[in-house]
Amino acid sequence: MTRIRLILTFLLIGPTVPSAQTWIWYPGDFEISLANKVQNRRTEKGTFFPVFWKMDNHYVLMDFHKVFDLTKAEKVRIHVEGEYNVKLDGKPFEGSPSEIDVPAGRHKINIKVFNQAEVPAIFVSGQTIKSDNSWLVTFEDKEWIDETGKTSDISATRWLKAGTWNFNRPEDRPSRFMLPVKPMAPAKLERRANGWLADFGRETFGFVTLHGVKGSGRITVYYGESKEEALSDEHCETYDPLSVTNKRGEDMTMALSKAFRYVRVKQGPGVSVDSLSMRFEYADVKERGSFTCSDPEINRIYDVSRYTFHLNTREFFIDGIKRDRWVWSGDAYQSYLMNYYSYFDNATVERTMLALRGKDPVTAHINTIMDYTLYWFLGIYDYYLYTGDKRFIGQHYDRMRSLMDYVLSRRNHDGLLEWMPGDWIFIDWAAGLSKKGEVSFEQLLFARSLETMALCAEIAGDPTGADQYRYWNQEKQALVHSRVDGKQTDNVTRYANMFSIFFGYFNEEQRKAVKTSVLLNDKVQRITTPYMRFYELEALCALGEQSFVLKEMKDYWGGMLKLGATSFWEEYNPMKSGLDHYSMYGRTFGKSLCHAWGASPIYLLGKYYLGVRPLTAGYDTWIAEPSLGGLEWMKGKVPTPAGDIDMEVSRTRIRITGVTGTGILRFKSSMRPESTGGILEPKGGDLYEVKIKSGKTVDITYKSVL
Amino acid sequence: MTRIRLILTFLLIGPTVPSAQTWIWYPGDFEISLANKVQNRRTEKGTFFPVFWKMDNHYVLMDFHKVFDLTKAEKVRIHVEGEYNVKLDGKPFEGSPSEIDVPAGRHKINIKVFNQAEVPAIFVSGQTIKSDNSWLVTFEDKEWIDETGKTSDISATRWLKAGTWNFNRPEDRPSRFMLPVKPMAPAKLERRANGWLADFGRETFGFVTLHGVKGSGRITVYYGESKEEALSDEHCETYDPLSVTNKRGEDMTMALSKAFRYVRVKQGPGVSVDSLSMRFEYADVKERGSFTCSDPEINRIYDVSRYTFHLNTREFFIDGIKRDRWVWSGDAYQSYLMNYYSYFDNATVERTMLALRGKDPVTAHINTIMDYTLYWFLGIYDYYLYTGDKRFIGQHYDRMRSLMDYVLSRRNHDGLLEWMPGDWIFIDWAAGLSKKGEVSFEQLLFARSLETMALCAEIAGDPTGADQYRYWNQEKQALVHSRVDGKQTDNVTRYANMFSIFFGYFNEEQRKAVKTSVLLNDKVQRITTPYMRFYELEALCALGEQSFVLKEMKDYWGGMLKLGATSFWEEYNPMKSGLDHYSMYGRTFGKSLCHAWGASPIYLLGKYYLGVRPLTAGYDTWIAEPSLGGLEWMKGKVPTPAGDIDMEVSRTRIRITGVTGTGILRFKSSMRPESTGGILEPKGGDLYEVKIKSGKTVDITYKSVL
Repeated sequence: MTRIRLILTFLLIGPTVPSAQTWIWYPGDFEISLANKVQNRRTEKGTFFPVFWKMDNHYVLMDFHKVFDLTKAEKVRIHVEGEYNVKLDGKPFEGSPSEIDVPAGRHKINIKVFNQAEVPAIFVSGQTIKSDNSWLVTFEDKEWIDETGKTSDISATRWLKAGTWNFNRPEDRPSRFMLPVKPMAPAKLERRANGWLADFGRETFGFVTLHGVKGSGRITVYYGESKEEALSDEHCETYDPLSVTNKRGEDMTMALSKAFRYVRVKQGPGVSVDSLSMRFEYADVKERGSFTCSDPEINRIYDVSRYTFHLNTREFFIDGIKRDRWVWSGDAYQSYLMNYYSYFDNATVERTMLALRGKDPVTAHINTIMDYTLYWFLGIYDYYLYTGDKRFIGQHYDRMRSLMDYVLSRRNHDGLLEWMPGDWIFIDWAAGLSKKGEVSFEQLLFARSLETMALCAEIAGDPTGADQYRYWNQEKQALVHSRVDGKQTDNVTRYANMFSIFFGYFNEEQRKAVKTSVLLNDKVQRITTPYMRFYELEALCALGEQSFVLKEMKDYWGGMLKLGATSFWEEYNPMKSGLDHYSMYGRTFGKSLCHAWGASPIYLLGKYYLGVRPLTAGYDTWIAEPSLGGLEWMKGKVPTPAGDIDMEVSRTRIRITGVTGTGILRFKSSMRPESTGGILEPKGGDLYEVKIKSGKTVDITYKSVL
Repeated sequence: MTRIRLILTFLLIGPTVPSAQTWIWYPGDFEISLANKVQNRRTEKGTFFPVFWKMDNHYVLMDFHKVFDLTKAEKVRIHVEGEYNVKLDGKPFEGSPSEIDVPAGRHKINIKVFNQAEVPAIFVSGQTIKSDNSWLVTFEDKEWIDETGKTSDISATRWLKAGTWNFNRPEDRPSRFMLPVKPMAPAKLERRANGWLADFGRETFGFVTLHGVKGSGRITVYYGESKEEALSDEHCETYDPLSVTNKRGEDMTMALSKAFRYVRVKQGPGVSVDSLSMRFEYADVKERGSFTCSDPEINRIYDVSRYTFHLNTREFFIDGIKRDRWVWSGDAYQSYLMNYYSYFDNATVERTMLALRGKDPVTAHINTIMDYTLYWFLGIYDYYLYTGDKRFIGQHYDRMRSLMDYVLSRRNHDGLLEWMPGDWIFIDWAAGLSKKGEVSFEQLLFARSLETMALCAEIAGDPTGADQYRYWNQEKQALVHSRVDGKQTDNVTRYANMFSIFFGYFNEEQRKAVKTSVLLNDKVQRITTPYMRFYELEALCALGEQSFVLKEMKDYWGGMLKLGATSFWEEYNPMKSGLDHYSMYGRTFGKSLCHAWGASPIYLLGKYYLGVRPLTAGYDTWIAEPSLGGLEWMKGKVPTPAGDIDMEVSRTRIRITGVTGTGILRFKSSMRPESTGGILEPKGGDLYEVKIKSGKTVDITYKSVL
């Protein structure tokens, strides 16, 4: 990647761009603090329901600094969250000034902030002196004065580049951040004996407002993802019990936003409510990817996937909007991938990764789950591949390393990962799945995590680390292969085999064997969560089974739509019927009906049908291998750091517009194709390639091979 | 120590006693949070002046639990700082109940609390179910539900016994803790051209109140430890710049408490103040130790030491009340020792040690100073020796270990500590003191720290750790000796030699050689801080030089009194004169005139004149070796966990009352002494011993040997 390319990337990736002036903080601290707030908003049956792992906290005392060269004197406004002082070239201003005068010349500005309750943050705006992500921050500015009054400074203080987002005005204080809301009326509002039942038409999320509340007594607001849930006093998963006194027709808005399609208001004796509405709460992300095709059912699946994904894309990528409303690393990992084919919103990926990582010391796996720690590394790998953002890796390499140290400290005598007290080995919700011993699936993720660390060590300028991680990975891969092979005979699961396919750990022959003997073999335990279906279908796509996968998609996601789903579920088992679909974890309405991992068609359709993916970091080089999988035609966009790649594909025509780097269009044609805008390179047999230059459109006339 | 003894200890050590019901929290979190607040109250010339090292933060999400056996059902009141839920045998109550009903039988109560801004804390009061330090707490209650709805729990969650202090009523919320205050008028109030000058008669600390403020304009409140400082607009170290608008005779109390004897109020144009007073802010600790003798100057030195120490005993043991108002480990170490001869307040020692230790990961030495990390270990050693409190060691052994891991990771190739980037090697304020290479003083502290860790490892049930620490210590001591010897010829300082004396690292011959060739040798650089005089005089006392030390005390501390000191200083150099006494760090009034380390006569007089000290943990066995050092008589009390040892000593009589364990009175007499209440054991020459049983008084008639 050239220097020009890098600058271009920074200019286009949106929220991480250094803006003119913006609120800044210690990187990760805003994210950790926000995650604490967000994840503690869950309630279950009216009761506070927090996470069950360590939550970290921000650094309370922070030093920010930058050196500036001023050609002339300037006034600088300073806004701070916390108590603070300001120093110019080491000399403090009196008090906590909100404006300072800085004379011309080269000057160092330090702002030191203490804030116990919220993240220390600053916003500085002058002509030249502005706060942005080039400022340096530290939580341990070791300096002292000796007996002669001289200030000493030491080199060991670790300064990091500041963290930022899009708080670009003084009044956008990070501590006050809230997602935007907009008012929304129910699609249907039905009066009932002792209250109301509202149907908002589809799954949604927000703050319910009761209008015209009168009297004194108890009101209960029941939230249902299904009508049955909203109507069940006993089994409804989320409700707000309210006690009101002497109300004279005021509106009341609930303190917490909730997931629902249906809302039932139950009025106790002595109180009444005139009507209700909601404030829809959402993340203001822009849809960049798109997909439309000749099959209306697939289009509907794509749309409901997008909606499902949007509802679950919030302050962070969460698992589900009713439940758990938490940041789970395995779930988030899939959301990152979907994001690269929809919003391409780096800021949400970064925030989610930082929230998951937390702080040192590492005392447990992320979310307590071994696989989830490893997915975190995989997420970094993909983040770099899709965005080319080296800054994030440099900024957080220390945290990557200490997390990997934790993993490495838990290897068994053969260097493999095995359950230890405190670990949860999840893999998937699947009855009877063995998690004893050296589970091959975990070893695969481990190998890929070491590969990620080798890559990041190089980017962060740690060649010793890179060698070490590469060496461990080689050692491990050798072992993994033998163990995976060794185990195939006694306990064949789809999991390890699927991942071996994307990670390129199988040769062509093994790939084919796995396809028929495992993936397409009905005797091997079926996968019932969209979570693992994600990988299963991805593995099949990677093996060229787009037609099969398209049918599966229609069957599985289409199956949910036929049951009336307006968003995709945490789990779907076509064998179940009626209310049984809504139960999970032994609870009648335990299942989440809007789960991010249900939205994977976004990813599959973008990556394996439009077929676009980066070959090198940040789409510097990339490939498009369209595959109709039985469709008549499809068209859509795939976002990249520098804009959206546009494609239209039918059985006889391909039209593609490149926007970045160098792309390759690869396709099969049973006739000699023709190209406008690019030079056709026959690759033997029915395979052809065309180079796509940035900004160029290529039109191909061909005959598709099914 | 028998079981009975231990229980007795717990009942008497005051604040750490499990009370009937008290607020509880994660041990260390309240202390860290309070230290953050307290240490960020410093201002210098009107500007916020925080510390320059890492400050830690509390855990935001906490799970508290205990199992109770109830013979009958009971109501339980619950008070919480934070959002919370309550579970009985794993089943949550709806909402956040302030009262629950618990049926008869065996039950587990869990309370889970989230609080970002303040330390999660609970107060539970029922007939049987009460919150106290036997509850268990964890910040990572790893548990999860599997797909069948079953809750799994894992063994690796680390539960600690809860932290407590004396917040024994629901309204005593830990987050609202403030030291008590009482109103105090100035001794002299003098009207000046543009305001007032108040003299409070002696050094003091508190919130100044301006009475009858009228008009609009600027008022500045200057604080002076000396009159000259209060009168200096330019060099006054602390002042409050105020802007007032439209005041009509109201009182105004300053937001922060300050150190001063003199307060000058300067009224700008348009404003006036009628008078002023203060609210004295103090720690409510009880003086238990005492000392009076035939020399009025020594009595005055003792009294001013006590006052100095009381002013610096606050939320924590701080260094000085004007400056830095911070918790410095080397300073605190001396305060712990003074405390054992005055308040015997374990709670303040524990709080201070916890605040200093902070949390993992360790990224720098305590206060960034190598010696200060090592003093922290020495403080633990003494704490155990004086109090016998094993609970504290058990509770915090993990933090001791990780701090020692940090130290061990910074050894050089010879296993010795040497300056590394980020380290400050303090030792003392002394011009030209070499801190290069393997400074012998640091090695001595290191050896003692390893000895402490070996002891704590045994108490905490970690025999492997104990062996390891003991082995390293032996290795180190061998090295230390050779290096110390090796260096004596080129750079003789008092420091390492002094410490080798108390640590017992010298034989009798070496001790004598050091006494004459170093300690009593005027050619070796003099010590000018009371900080190091503490150890110097202690070493001389340990060598039996009480008469010499008494003269030094009168000379040095008496010298400050002659200059009008009402509290003892950070530094005193008899060679200086006039205003020069007040300057330090290149600033006219930079010196603190009330510094805890100035109060060491409290310790010296108790430990080396009354001569009482524990021989085994918690005064289970102890010794009294009174030494008049030239005084006619002395009397006083030395506190122990079980009460105060009372002594009266003249040149012909000794009267001592034991209150705990088994004591030995050891003294020299030039005639055959007589004893009432205990059996005399001649020990050869003029040496005699008498065993002192708990609760018994022994009277000796003898003739003292000077």
